[in-house]
Amino acid sequence: MAKAAILGFGTVGSGVAEVLTMNAENIAKTVGEEVQIKYIVDVRDFPDSPFAPLMTKDFSDVENDPEIDVVAEVIGGATVAYDFTKRALKAGKSVVTSNKELVAKHGRELLAIAKDMNVNYLFEASVGGGIPLIRPLTQCLAGNKIEEIYGILNGTTNYILTDMIENGASFEAALREAQRLGYAEANPSADIDGIDAGRKICILADICFGKEVRSDMVPTEGITGVTLEDVEAAEKLGYKIKLLGRAMSLDGKTCAFVAPHLVPKGNMLARVDGVMNGVVVRGNAVGETMFYGPGAGKLPTASAVVGDIIDALRHRQKRRDIGWEAGESADFFDPSLLKTPWYVRVEGETASITQPCTRAELNEALAEKTVLASFRVLD
Amino acid sequence: MAKAAILGFGTVGSGVAEVLTMNAENIAKTVGEEVQIKYIVDVRDFPDSPFAPLMTKDFSDVENDPEIDVVAEVIGGATVAYDFTKRALKAGKSVVTSNKELVAKHGRELLAIAKDMNVNYLFEASVGGGIPLIRPLTQCLAGNKIEEIYGILNGTTNYILTDMIENGASFEAALREAQRLGYAEANPSADIDGIDAGRKICILADICFGKEVRSDMVPTEGITGVTLEDVEAAEKLGYKIKLLGRAMSLDGKTCAFVAPHLVPKGNMLARVDGVMNGVVVRGNAVGETMFYGPGAGKLPTASAVVGDIIDALRHRQKRRDIGWEAGESADFFDPSLLKTPWYVRVEGETASITQPCTRAELNEALAEKTVLASFRVLD
Repeated sequence: MAKAAILGFGTVGSGVAEVLTMNAENIAKTVGEEVQIKYIVDVRDFPDSPFAPLMTKDFSDVENDPEIDVVAEVIGGATVAYDFTKRALKAGKSVVTSNKELVAKHGRELLAIAKDMNVNYLFEASVGGGIPLIRPLTQCLAGNKIEEIYGILNGTTNYILTDMIENGASFEAALREAQRLGYAEANPSADIDGIDAGRKICILADICFGKEVRSDMVPTEGITGVTLEDVEAAEKLGYKIKLLGRAMSLDGKTCAFVAPHLVPKGNMLARVDGVMNGVVVRGNAVGETMFYGPGAGKLPTASAVVGDIIDALRHRQKRRDIGWEAGESADFFDPSLLKTPWYVRVEGETASITQPCTRAELNEALAEKTVLASFRVLD
Repeated sequence: MAKAAILGFGTVGSGVAEVLTMNAENIAKTVGEEVQIKYIVDVRDFPDSPFAPLMTKDFSDVENDPEIDVVAEVIGGATVAYDFTKRALKAGKSVVTSNKELVAKHGRELLAIAKDMNVNYLFEASVGGGIPLIRPLTQCLAGNKIEEIYGILNGTTNYILTDMIENGASFEAALREAQRLGYAEANPSADIDGIDAGRKICILADICFGKEVRSDMVPTEGITGVTLEDVEAAEKLGYKIKLLGRAMSLDGKTCAFVAPHLVPKGNMLARVDGVMNGVVVRGNAVGETMFYGPGAGKLPTASAVVGDIIDALRHRQKRRDIGWEAGESADFFDPSLLKTPWYVRVEGETASITQPCTRAELNEALAEKTVLASFRVLD
């Protein structure tokens, strides 16, 4: 019997416990033995939970128990989670996580510790929630040179934009509705300012291009500057406005950024609505392929965490090598130098789409005018 | 250095050689050593090919060479390919393939031989061309109980239906155009009669439900009965007609079939056009997730074959277990007993959508009428 510990009993943590329980039979068949939760670590009390007997407030119970093979870190943030992850790896346990902030900030270091200890650090759930992404990239598409990866990586902002597009809601009204439904936090900055999408595109860039892209290298523009006027003008021009994270390889350098884009209505990403996520990968052999599904939520995220638990247990003898641990930082291509068409709305003129140009060229061309909005266009 | 052989130098085989060559550096990095093609087996001569020095007509060159670790079988069919695959596996070589006919017919036996010999038999390319599907199902979604998998599995028929829907082409004209473009064979039966999609849904059902579904168990209805009248009537009702392969778990039994369906325009599958494929998986934790991309073609299919070559080489010590080798046949749920809404076009009446019912109930309700067309509706 394999024994697991869950760190953090919030939304995702309780989902992980639920999935391990409800699908126990299938999971045992796949792993080759039963998988039992031995500890759930949380500072809070959950006296009414069916998992109450497994609760502990002391992480060292997990750290010092040689029976524990795998630890699911679903605390979030990069403080306690960082400390516990390092200690678990150093104690010879594989760690799986949905914690994009931690992976984006300290992934390289944690992967190096995992390698030293001959255990796994897996983070399928950190990008795209339940959508399979990291394994398809590192395995199925391993024969490709990845040219670009881009997509809708944040469900909250996609919900807000969809509400604006479909129901004519203002940004403020759509945000309030997202908060009412629990899709957005009381302090929504991490979502609406593009920070969450920025962490995710960092992780995808690391995986696709094999070198570390730090969050602080990646310019992020959120959706607070998108107005109903722009949504309507985009509609008339044949586009939908979506917040995209993009990472590409240009001249041997990595370019990554987050910004609102006009996406042609014929593009599959224009059809990714509400809280769903969609990610497009372009490889030099496969062409374009897209992954679509729930990018957040209790059970979808738990699905990915449990997939990683299973994989870690099946690779106890021989650790999985995910191909991003070279320890090198990426040479960075400044996204403002990327040439794309732009959507431009200028005072007194009808909104229009420009020829491909850089940000500086656009600014120069518009120097004499009062610019009300300018967003890149996906071509 | 790892040495590989390619069996068959047709479209896919030459694509595999091309991808292994053009992405050699990346592939070597991922595998941990260079991957060299040592033989290409084909009965034909290719004197002008850059790969001419590697050509042999004699499979036993491969079979008897202990240096060969992995063999890509891209011959197609279930005669010579069957013989060569068995011999290669028995000679202790991993085999990877794009051959859906062989996997659907003899997959169970070939997986058993591979297991006995402690080598791999991998077939990511057999379903969905370059789209990552089998690994996401067996790994990322391993924590789920899969409830249903369904999708557009054949690019040729999707091209024809798209041409009918978008351009008002007749079935015959669209088929001729598909043949002219090389998407359809001179004898198009395997595509338009749903046989190809039937093989693929068998493989997906095997993988998702862990028991063997034989092609001859799976009723297949192709697209020859779809007329422009139906395409237009569907449009008015808010649907697009798509050929779907579907497999689901019902009462502990497996139900699988191929048939034209009316797909609601809001469904992502309605947006999968032309030769593209799209596959939706519904799991009890993840909900619905979709995989989209080129379902055929030289380089996309080669991308998947090369992904498997890399995986086979990385798992030489410890073979990959793909979770479909139990040797059991599935209990089969007769698809005609599945209750769904139906699209019905009856002489003298406007086309309409029924309440959910079985095929027999539908026939009974329509007994007095002249039925011009009836297709299931995806709900």
